[in-house]
Amino acid sequence: MTIGVSGLPKVVEHTMTESDLTYQFGGRYPIADVLPGQVLHTSTEDCFGGAVLTVDDLPSKVCQRFNPVTGPFRVPGAEPGDTLALHFIEIRPARDWGMSATFPHFGALTGTHTTAMLGLPLPEVVWQYDIDTTAGVVRYRARRSDYMTELPLDPMLGTVGVAPANDEVRSSIVPDVHGGNLDTPELRAGTTLYLGVNVPGAMFSLGDGHARQGQGEVCGVGVECAMHVTVAVDLIKGVRTVWPRIETDHQLISVGAARPLEDAFRISQHDLTTWTSRLTGLDDLDAYQLVSQAGKAAPGNVCDPNYTMHAAIDTAVLRGATGYDGVHQRLRVLARGLPAELLGSAR
Amino acid sequence: MTIGVSGLPKVVEHTMTESDLTYQFGGRYPIADVLPGQVLHTSTEDCFGGAVLTVDDLPSKVCQRFNPVTGPFRVPGAEPGDTLALHFIEIRPARDWGMSATFPHFGALTGTHTTAMLGLPLPEVVWQYDIDTTAGVVRYRARRSDYMTELPLDPMLGTVGVAPANDEVRSSIVPDVHGGNLDTPELRAGTTLYLGVNVPGAMFSLGDGHARQGQGEVCGVGVECAMHVTVAVDLIKGVRTVWPRIETDHQLISVGAARPLEDAFRISQHDLTTWTSRLTGLDDLDAYQLVSQAGKAAPGNVCDPNYTMHAAIDTAVLRGATGYDGVHQRLRVLARGLPAELLGSAR
Amino acid sequence: MTIGVSGLPKVVEHTMTESDLTYQFGGRYPIADVLPGQVLHTSTEDCFGGAVLTVDDLPSKVCQRFNPVTGPFRVPGAEPGDTLALHFIEIRPARDWGMSATFPHFGALTGTHTTAMLGLPLPEVVWQYDIDTTAGVVRYRARRSDYMTELPLDPMLGTVGVAPANDEVRSSIVPDVHGGNLDTPELRAGTTLYLGVNVPGAMFSLGDGHARQGQGEVCGVGVECAMHVTVAVDLIKGVRTVWPRIETDHQLISVGAARPLEDAFRISQHDLTTWTSRLTGLDDLDAYQLVSQAGKAAPGNVCDPNYTMHAAIDTAVLRGATGYDGVHQRLRVLARGLPAELLGSAR
Amino acid sequence: MTIGVSGLPKVVEHTMTESDLTYQFGGRYPIADVLPGQVLHTSTEDCFGGAVLTVDDLPSKVCQRFNPVTGPFRVPGAEPGDTLALHFIEIRPARDWGMSATFPHFGALTGTHTTAMLGLPLPEVVWQYDIDTTAGVVRYRARRSDYMTELPLDPMLGTVGVAPANDEVRSSIVPDVHGGNLDTPELRAGTTLYLGVNVPGAMFSLGDGHARQGQGEVCGVGVECAMHVTVAVDLIKGVRTVWPRIETDHQLISVGAARPLEDAFRISQHDLTTWTSRLTGLDDLDAYQLVSQAGKAAPGNVCDPNYTMHAAIDTAVLRGATGYDGVHQRLRVLARGLPAELLGSAR
Repeated sequence: MTIGVSGLPKVVEHTMTESDLTYQFGGRYPIADVLPGQVLHTSTEDCFGGAVLTVDDLPSKVCQRFNPVTGPFRVPGAEPGDTLALHFIEIRPARDWGMSATFPHFGALTGTHTTAMLGLPLPEVVWQYDIDTTAGVVRYRARRSDYMTELPLDPMLGTVGVAPANDEVRSSIVPDVHGGNLDTPELRAGTTLYLGVNVPGAMFSLGDGHARQGQGEVCGVGVECAMHVTVAVDLIKGVRTVWPRIETDHQLISVGAARPLEDAFRISQHDLTTWTSRLTGLDDLDAYQLVSQAGKAAPGNVCDPNYTMHAAIDTAVLRGATGYDGVHQRLRVLARGLPAELLGSAR
Repeated sequence: MTIGVSGLPKVVEHTMTESDLTYQFGGRYPIADVLPGQVLHTSTEDCFGGAVLTVDDLPSKVCQRFNPVTGPFRVPGAEPGDTLALHFIEIRPARDWGMSATFPHFGALTGTHTTAMLGLPLPEVVWQYDIDTTAGVVRYRARRSDYMTELPLDPMLGTVGVAPANDEVRSSIVPDVHGGNLDTPELRAGTTLYLGVNVPGAMFSLGDGHARQGQGEVCGVGVECAMHVTVAVDLIKGVRTVWPRIETDHQLISVGAARPLEDAFRISQHDLTTWTSRLTGLDDLDAYQLVSQAGKAAPGNVCDPNYTMHAAIDTAVLRGATGYDGVHQRLRVLARGLPAELLGSAR
Repeated sequence: MTIGVSGLPKVVEHTMTESDLTYQFGGRYPIADVLPGQVLHTSTEDCFGGAVLTVDDLPSKVCQRFNPVTGPFRVPGAEPGDTLALHFIEIRPARDWGMSATFPHFGALTGTHTTAMLGLPLPEVVWQYDIDTTAGVVRYRARRSDYMTELPLDPMLGTVGVAPANDEVRSSIVPDVHGGNLDTPELRAGTTLYLGVNVPGAMFSLGDGHARQGQGEVCGVGVECAMHVTVAVDLIKGVRTVWPRIETDHQLISVGAARPLEDAFRISQHDLTTWTSRLTGLDDLDAYQLVSQAGKAAPGNVCDPNYTMHAAIDTAVLRGATGYDGVHQRLRVLARGLPAELLGSAR
Repeated sequence: MTIGVSGLPKVVEHTMTESDLTYQFGGRYPIADVLPGQVLHTSTEDCFGGAVLTVDDLPSKVCQRFNPVTGPFRVPGAEPGDTLALHFIEIRPARDWGMSATFPHFGALTGTHTTAMLGLPLPEVVWQYDIDTTAGVVRYRARRSDYMTELPLDPMLGTVGVAPANDEVRSSIVPDVHGGNLDTPELRAGTTLYLGVNVPGAMFSLGDGHARQGQGEVCGVGVECAMHVTVAVDLIKGVRTVWPRIETDHQLISVGAARPLEDAFRISQHDLTTWTSRLTGLDDLDAYQLVSQAGKAAPGNVCDPNYTMHAAIDTAVLRGATGYDGVHQRLRVLARGLPAELLGSAR
């Protein structure tokens, strides 16, 4: 069912410019084509569009819009009912600093647009992090004391999605069935993201890199950073995927996006249960029982218009089952085999 | 502030009998005293009161009540405004099998008493697991096929709590500020649970052992198993604890219990944020930022009358801060030093 | 099935004193007996225990505890599995003023104990209302301007309940299956409240009068006022009631108590649907359809530990069906026929 | 600030055809212009596109898409930052029958796409109602018995909205800040709906008529019926409206759309509180207190992708304040004065 992954893949270099940025999924013409079996090498801006350069640049002052994504990229041959596989080979910080902030009426521990509260919002404050790719750390520096500490560098993309179904156009801030602003730390290099295709060409976009983020992204903002991204693209014809799924070398992960948070949990656990039953031949109730004991669960974000939860299971528990007939494993091998010169700056 | 942890601790042996089981927190006379600095060695029944012996024993038929806990134990000297520290030295399966089940109108993927639905509930089905303490695994066996697989043994207590405030008496099914049915896999041997004391003597009880459970406990039931429990008891005078907290050798964990699930998340993240600011001297906003990037989060249960979420941070990120002036570390050392003969069957 | 409602009912006069106040449902000895068929005449304190006398008396300063209820009253003959019917003949303000307040960490538009937020809580402010029973109004007076306006007087009891099941003891702040702090304006004179009996004697208590409140009680506090209460008591033997129900001369009302608010909605709609199907002989799906088009719905409170919603249907739509074989109608007739001298101050 | 409402308004007749139906808000060219001060007379299809003609026509079989709306209509002169006022003069059933249904995975008392459940969904069943405009009733007929009953006819539009902000295009199933599928019985003739303008021309559409619906629309479907609609259009320049608002002759109503339901409640109460403070000069806390005692609240729908709640206050309580400087009252007078021949079939 997989098309074209063999031999040396072609690498599509796409140098991102201002006009390649969009703030929506759906409703846009493609900026480039990437064929199934090809590798895309491009870059993304941070969620501030690069406008926050110091801790004195308040996002509400210096930004017009938030969360630009690079795209959309068209995948010729992709049709509704197919599944798009995006295998992230590399997500590499494009700068040696990242920015985070509290933002009025955004985040889990403050009143928001929908969790409407009287009383003052939290103040808007910016934090700057050093990103040290050699040491593999980001450096946190307090604003109101001289406290400093180091956290592991763990680059990821907060926002990857396709054009939605039913002619909808969604803001890049929103996560939903089309992917979008999932804001989960699980979307790191070495993983494969599966998204259901809703329109011809799939029309995927990506952005919102974080040098790292906590699970739940409680204040609403990660360590925001422009990224260089290398991603292998594949297409699984005739196989539907409803909710976003992620495969790693050792885990299957289902992602739910909804409010309240228990519905995001329900979606992810339901999807993992039925995925498990399909892969193992287990009855749904037997799979439900197995996931109940073996499952891992964590929030991606608890701040965006939809919250995200993921449900994960170790493939060892499933006696080695793989997600989509080995697509992830083939892309993994492909990525490992890529000669450094083909990737250019990606290595 | 800590009383009496020095030298060889006294081990209080309490052989659990039927009359030591209770189904509530609060409103009961103590079954024994354990002084701060002493170690309690006792045992717990499973959530079925041991009545489910085969996959044909439907809980709704063979059980009158659910979730017995052993207790309450009184801690002389404990007063409202203090914090009780329970350090779990050992949680060891008392049987070589465990039981799980789907239960009508219980669990996250079915209509329940409060998420009221028309239509049929899921059928009641029982699963039996082998518990192999030597191999360190539990063995899952499907009911409607011959599928088998192994999961890591990871024993924990689902229910540990104290008498509630305001003269309330709560069912042992409920998790809340007093602890209770937290149902989190984090409550394993090697950790210290901190609970605010609400009544003289604290009156703690424990039970509901799971040979393991998934994060979120989606079907509502873990691998239920009677346990032998060894727990060191300590008391932190004059220090209030609002929500349950857990300390491991490497993490501080705050536990929230509420519905909807985002409120359990908010509670845990808020508690971890203010705990972090107190331990580090960081301003609350600076701590919020740090937790946003460094924090880990996961559900305990998404099935009980209150859902639980935990928020965790690595103490390394906090430059080695400890939760309550080193109580966990001292109890850890104490536990490691206990001569095998003092613990009896616990070793 | 109804016991003893015939002829002139006996009126039990119970003069409430300090020692008749309790802050919990369950776990208390009865203060008096009221037989089925008898009428109770007593009084209740306001939620501040009468301690807030001027707008300068901040509840957090002058109150030790909140929400006292008068009781419990024992209903001899009541057993688990029966239904208690409480028909409110009169709820009359005992004072010509009422008090309301904003309360830190309480109410729907502020961070709370469970909807935990960083940032400052709303300030604590007290409002005093004139209660003019002759004109049938309460008079609102702004604190920070000279704005005044009148609202219709509509006295109700915020808190009426029985002892909970499973030996639980619940704070009087909590609404749940046992009734309790329902905080719904529907609990006014002329209505009958049905509550399932959980313990011998039912052990009902009542209090928390409001001269009026808005639907949802958004700030968390009504126009709090001590009340004189006249209530006819009846018992429906052998008929279970799960969730609280209210019957008026023209409506059947089911009350759900839960979080999130949609679960309170689900409970109330599910109960009204199945109640409708039982009263009309309709299939559950046919009843669901009828309730979907004819049903009324409103929040009671969206601030207490459980939120409440009610689902109502006009009995005209049900072709004149009555809730419990005409209990409400018989109690209504009884109440109307009571000679004024029997009721004493209640008339 | 209001443009052009004086003298005899022009009535724009727009005969709806298949190509005037859309399933989205935003992203479409206008089908006609209506100037501020003009009256639009058009018609709408039912949510099934008229394809469900008998109880044997299962929507999942006979419908391709759901919830067509007529539009968009462009309002020349409308710009972002203005408020569109739509005063409904008449909403009249275009047929003498209406249809309702249960729909798999839709409605409040069944598992759905996001409240994901294992187990069977409710069966798909269709109900047909007689609409008797002379008697002013709709007639319910059970499917599985011969039970019949009558409900008051109360025609309304379930879906009215403008193009969303930020270039979003939303399905007509979704209610949000742009209006859309609010599904509230309050949107009946005689009321004025206020919506913030997001794009030049506002681009409003309307549809989804219900001959009536219950509050909360628990099964997810009202008594669906094509409608003739007469609506006066006005524009309030330079006045922003965030969430949809409705004004009647006696009430101001704020509408919130969100999940969980308490957030829809919070939005509506917050908006009504700040609206009240602006109209009366009250401080926000004083307004909060007034709304807490005087406010009415009810769900519109608890089934759509966002739930809706409305918060209402009687204008009498506000000493006669009107919503937007008397726009509703002027449109009301205008509507009453329209000669019957101008409206054609609308009278």
